[in-house]
Amino acid sequence: MIKIIVDCFGGDHSPEANIDGSLDALERFKDLYLILTGDENIIREKLCGREYDTARLSIVHAPDVIGCDEKPTDAIRLKKESSMIKAVRMLRDEDDIAGMVSVGSTGALVAAALTRVGLLEGVIRPAFCPLLPTMKGGIVGICDSGANVEVTSDYLKQFAIMASLYMENVYGIQKPRVALLNVGVEPGKGDTIRQEAYEILSELPCINFVGNMESRDLLSGLYDAVVCDGFSGNVLVKTTEGTAVELLKKVKAAIFSRTIYKIGALFQKKMFADLKSFMNYQNYGGSVLLGTRKVVVKGHGSSKAVAVQKCIEQAYRMVESSLSAKIEEALDKFDHFE
Amino acid sequence: MIKIIVDCFGGDHSPEANIDGSLDALERFKDLYLILTGDENIIREKLCGREYDTARLSIVHAPDVIGCDEKPTDAIRLKKESSMIKAVRMLRDEDDIAGMVSVGSTGALVAAALTRVGLLEGVIRPAFCPLLPTMKGGIVGICDSGANVEVTSDYLKQFAIMASLYMENVYGIQKPRVALLNVGVEPGKGDTIRQEAYEILSELPCINFVGNMESRDLLSGLYDAVVCDGFSGNVLVKTTEGTAVELLKKVKAAIFSRTIYKIGALFQKKMFADLKSFMNYQNYGGSVLLGTRKVVVKGHGSSKAVAVQKCIEQAYRMVESSLSAKIEEALDKFDHFE
Repeated sequence: MIKIIVDCFGGDHSPEANIDGSLDALERFKDLYLILTGDENIIREKLCGREYDTARLSIVHAPDVIGCDEKPTDAIRLKKESSMIKAVRMLRDEDDIAGMVSVGSTGALVAAALTRVGLLEGVIRPAFCPLLPTMKGGIVGICDSGANVEVTSDYLKQFAIMASLYMENVYGIQKPRVALLNVGVEPGKGDTIRQEAYEILSELPCINFVGNMESRDLLSGLYDAVVCDGFSGNVLVKTTEGTAVELLKKVKAAIFSRTIYKIGALFQKKMFADLKSFMNYQNYGGSVLLGTRKVVVKGHGSSKAVAVQKCIEQAYRMVESSLSAKIEEALDKFDHFE
Repeated sequence: MIKIIVDCFGGDHSPEANIDGSLDALERFKDLYLILTGDENIIREKLCGREYDTARLSIVHAPDVIGCDEKPTDAIRLKKESSMIKAVRMLRDEDDIAGMVSVGSTGALVAAALTRVGLLEGVIRPAFCPLLPTMKGGIVGICDSGANVEVTSDYLKQFAIMASLYMENVYGIQKPRVALLNVGVEPGKGDTIRQEAYEILSELPCINFVGNMESRDLLSGLYDAVVCDGFSGNVLVKTTEGTAVELLKKVKAAIFSRTIYKIGALFQKKMFADLKSFMNYQNYGGSVLLGTRKVVVKGHGSSKAVAVQKCIEQAYRMVESSLSAKIEEALDKFDHFE
């Protein structure tokens, strides 16, 4: 049985989306056990009348919720009875709980994971690795996308190893093509950190390093994992999402601006629905935190049930594939510092 | 008469696009004088039979071309007879030439502008400021987008002052809303440089600082100028362009995948043409280099005639509005270092 804990509060659609997503995941994976944290009365009420395997779900009462605007360090210190911090504490203390999923405050989750759960042997810093869909129908992981606004080339080396193992073990991509985000494709581009990282990654035998990538090629399908500092990674992911959302809005507004366009769109209903679904990050799960001692998956604050279910699936597959052990093994073998 | 020099070689569509764009600009601005650099025979041949005011155009022979893959420092040292370096040298030496436009190698242009043309009084580093269209029908300037992969908070302060003056004087935007690119909107977000810059910009009386901006909101129309380091600025601009291009390709492929979608698209021909034009960076000119002693505008390597014409227009308007003097004045007044 794989035991995962789901923080049921903190997102825009909590707790409904979290509970619905949990029940969907339970239905899908028969060796999954879920623990839901949050206000027990509310969760029980929402579960009332729903069909699910009661033997594989339990609730832990945690009445507080951490707001997105709360200072992370204060939140984890003062809100011990919040659904997130209680989940983190149980994750730390109970050996049989293998991972957790939260759609709450990112800052609080990173801080709590770092200070309470701790890191895998050899890991310097944990890193987020969200996914985006590529135009070839695949996916690309971006590591780091915001856990570390400042990095060194040693961090980038570890991000590359962890992201490569993640894409291989959780998504079955053989020899993932790992690229370094840079301002040009030629070697020697970028600042000192990028130049050093390029050298290091070129000589790393355990990854399939394919060189620098310019951000315009992120969705090209030529890359499986992109390594970057958390600042530019954050810009990369949010710009992609933002541009896609704004463009689809623009297309919609254009269609509604003239009757003849609306008539045309009647023929394309399914096409636009498919495009919308393709660009909907909810379908690609959350941002896994790589490098923590136990599995931590952060869903978007606006996650609906499908996104929460995907996040739970990600956590499940990370546990199932023994990703953590593989990361420790690779770092032990390929990441020696003098 | 405003005298601008146009490097006619180096881009994907050179020299045709450069020459066509030049003639369009000449037609448009009656007090504009253009000097074209490049292989004189080829330029003369392309001009043959064209109608234009011959009194306002001259050619300077420069047979060499700098390739995009050449090392900038080597190129400017060894390719003295190239269309770009000859243009830069004339810009430096001849008082009556106010600016130049090039669609050639960015690295060579920045290096040449820095070492040959020099900077305005008080400027620490020049910065690129390209434009993107917003969903509200306006534009947003991104400064820096690649001239400085590493910055300090003092650089960011100067970028903010220069970009604000640029958007105001060249595009007539009153009190441009200047934002700092960051990983979240709250003050205190980002690395030390961003935190320092936030403080500095908040207290700067000569700009309308509206706080941090998340990259997903770049196209929202809520900002007129965004200040960032050249690395994340490069990611911001190229991700936006890349996502837009890939999405439009995706829509096109979807339409052609089924007859019924194609039928629908027949009703929407103009709509898709408008959308394509809206997202086409060629219509928004080039990336001006702010802070150099004379005006330097860098067009995209793939610039067609319309883009070259827009670049010349940008250079023209920068000269016409005395932007350089205004930048020097503002830095003198608001940028003191102990």
